[in-house]
Amino acid sequence: MAVKINENYLLMKSNYIFSEINQRVDRYQNENPDADIIRMGIGDVTRPLPRAVVEKFKEAVDEMSKNDSFRGYGPEQGYDFLIDEIIKHDYEPRGIKLSNDEVFISDGAKCDTGNIQEIFGLENTVAVTDPVYPVYVDSNVMAGRTGPMGDDGRYQNLVYIPCTEDNEFVPELPESSVDLIYLCYPNNPTGTALNKEQLAVWVDYAIENNSIILFDAAYEAYIREENIPHSIYEIRGAREVAIEFRSFSKNAGFTGTRCAYTVVPKELKGFDEEGRPHSLNNLWNRRQTTKFNGVSYPIQVAASAVFSPEGQEEIQESVEYYMKNASIIRESLDNLGLKIYGGVNSPYIWIKTPGEMDSWQFFDLLLNEAHVVGTPGVGFGPSGEGYLRLTAFNTLENTKEAMERMSKLSI
Amino acid sequence: MAVKINENYLLMKSNYIFSEINQRVDRYQNENPDADIIRMGIGDVTRPLPRAVVEKFKEAVDEMSKNDSFRGYGPEQGYDFLIDEIIKHDYEPRGIKLSNDEVFISDGAKCDTGNIQEIFGLENTVAVTDPVYPVYVDSNVMAGRTGPMGDDGRYQNLVYIPCTEDNEFVPELPESSVDLIYLCYPNNPTGTALNKEQLAVWVDYAIENNSIILFDAAYEAYIREENIPHSIYEIRGAREVAIEFRSFSKNAGFTGTRCAYTVVPKELKGFDEEGRPHSLNNLWNRRQTTKFNGVSYPIQVAASAVFSPEGQEEIQESVEYYMKNASIIRESLDNLGLKIYGGVNSPYIWIKTPGEMDSWQFFDLLLNEAHVVGTPGVGFGPSGEGYLRLTAFNTLENTKEAMERMSKLSI
Repeated sequence: MAVKINENYLLMKSNYIFSEINQRVDRYQNENPDADIIRMGIGDVTRPLPRAVVEKFKEAVDEMSKNDSFRGYGPEQGYDFLIDEIIKHDYEPRGIKLSNDEVFISDGAKCDTGNIQEIFGLENTVAVTDPVYPVYVDSNVMAGRTGPMGDDGRYQNLVYIPCTEDNEFVPELPESSVDLIYLCYPNNPTGTALNKEQLAVWVDYAIENNSIILFDAAYEAYIREENIPHSIYEIRGAREVAIEFRSFSKNAGFTGTRCAYTVVPKELKGFDEEGRPHSLNNLWNRRQTTKFNGVSYPIQVAASAVFSPEGQEEIQESVEYYMKNASIIRESLDNLGLKIYGGVNSPYIWIKTPGEMDSWQFFDLLLNEAHVVGTPGVGFGPSGEGYLRLTAFNTLENTKEAMERMSKLSI
Repeated sequence: MAVKINENYLLMKSNYIFSEINQRVDRYQNENPDADIIRMGIGDVTRPLPRAVVEKFKEAVDEMSKNDSFRGYGPEQGYDFLIDEIIKHDYEPRGIKLSNDEVFISDGAKCDTGNIQEIFGLENTVAVTDPVYPVYVDSNVMAGRTGPMGDDGRYQNLVYIPCTEDNEFVPELPESSVDLIYLCYPNNPTGTALNKEQLAVWVDYAIENNSIILFDAAYEAYIREENIPHSIYEIRGAREVAIEFRSFSKNAGFTGTRCAYTVVPKELKGFDEEGRPHSLNNLWNRRQTTKFNGVSYPIQVAASAVFSPEGQEEIQESVEYYMKNASIIRESLDNLGLKIYGGVNSPYIWIKTPGEMDSWQFFDLLLNEAHVVGTPGVGFGPSGEGYLRLTAFNTLENTKEAMERMSKLSI
């Protein structure tokens, strides 16, 4: 007798892309101590929290210091004062009605997109776009919904939906029927978006096939164009087939502060072996109340300040700041003759590697010749090979400098 | 084809003890609007955050408001500045050596004790003391390690270790060999503690049987007596067999602020089907880096202030305040002729219901006759029947008033 591990963990390929990036950057920096390296790889914001948020945040901390306003355990699902604001600002203006118990506050979209698969049976077929945010894949591998990874870089039993130049990054419906579909739009890592008609194709598919769409809208704030849906619930019928994930990380700079939310409409059903329907909202509520204890009260107050007029103005300013960087990157790389995607409704720019270079070769070229760090596309899945991601999250100065350096590359 | 749910969720008995309590209290309050009800049921603190913590908390929020001190994503495992303090203050003085990558900061012991089972295979036999903190049980039911609950209130395939008057609440070793053992000491809900010799029996058992002990030490700060271990690693050999969970909730009032940590020594091994050993530290690291994004930076700063001299003084003051309540409860109930346990090294007092009353009958008596709310022991497991839990977390005034009222009960 001995304690057995969850063997599914052993299936995980050590896809330590960010640690491999760090190793290469560190090695280069050690060999070239004077090189001024500009990091445009990781999707982390750089601008501070909005002043409106900071003010309310500190007031809430002060409340915690006084006997009569101290708060202990809050509702695992989040405080209504925050959920009210979310519904009023993020959904009602788009004609989407939600009740408070359809919104679950959490400490991050990474946690929620990683944990959501727990409420589903292991026998479901899971589809992901390729390239993809690795959490969707890894959380399903760890749960045991896949086989090992094959030589083609794909886990067995997982349906990959390639998004490449060939289909202009618009995912095509799978040939076989799938149960759970992860979609992230505006997309990480490609930076591309789906318009309403394109997303409606997927909602219709899900209705037709009794599938559930797990829709990650973490980059919603970066949408600039008309006709790009900010929420999947703008699409008719989506309430019956979609769970939506949102976050304060990328719009309000909460990557180090931690607050997000997940919408699980009450219409959503999953089925047991005997075909009886069960509310997914109830299951998620059960999951969260059993294994989660709510988001810190001061942070929920801080998040609610995002919706104040001052907060909205400040986050708009930050988003525009980053999107100006995105424009600069787009323009510079276009001038350089590179094929680029994204950066219009998203802070990510997805670059086709020039010539015959693969993702890592282009990564090395940028690092060695321009001292610019990107993320090799292949790290996001086999269909990411031949691409590289840059982010618009650095400072304007660094972004300009990086583009200046890249303009001198001979590619 | 239709999406299948995780059917293990259907095994969960709707053990909505706290909602049943709330319903009964609300009904009574509606029928008796003038009744001044004193709540001593839920294990939530009432005293505000220490001043030292609040000060640092706000300073860290201010850092987030400035370009040059803003922090985005931090390490999923937590910042070293906090881990350093934890090791220095909570472990080194007891002769326990830990390296920084053996300590994982999280947003709560509930999350960690709920999630830890993920890294283990489903075939492991799990043992819990009875009565027990429900998260240990529920998280294993949801994962599929148990059968349905029988008429005896026990889930099939789960090993229950009764802790009652008969064994003076000292759990006896299981008759059959078990793989994973959840122990919580000082105990929630019984308020009892194990001394070093008693805990060593379990560590020795785990070494002998190749088991892993999941040791919840959330109430460590309430230990008053000598020879009660504050950490399981005070016991020889425990580094090879135990994971320890700690929290800032009950010592520093973080129930609404959210910070905790889990220690996974590198010696700990689990095994795959072919008998090869794997580091549990690596597996937990993989789990956390895949599905968690770290604790809010300002909260980690706030938690680190708990270890400042001022912070230590203030939390000591709060613990003493609560433990004075515990003494008052113990003394009053003893005078009343009730049999009581706990309350010496713990903020919980475990009362044997008088006469032939069951847990809910005693609950109703207290509510109706004294307007005092406790928690029926049966809510924590079948061996909790015939007991009721009171907490020392209310104010001194309310505690005294509650005891005054209870002293007039004819029991």
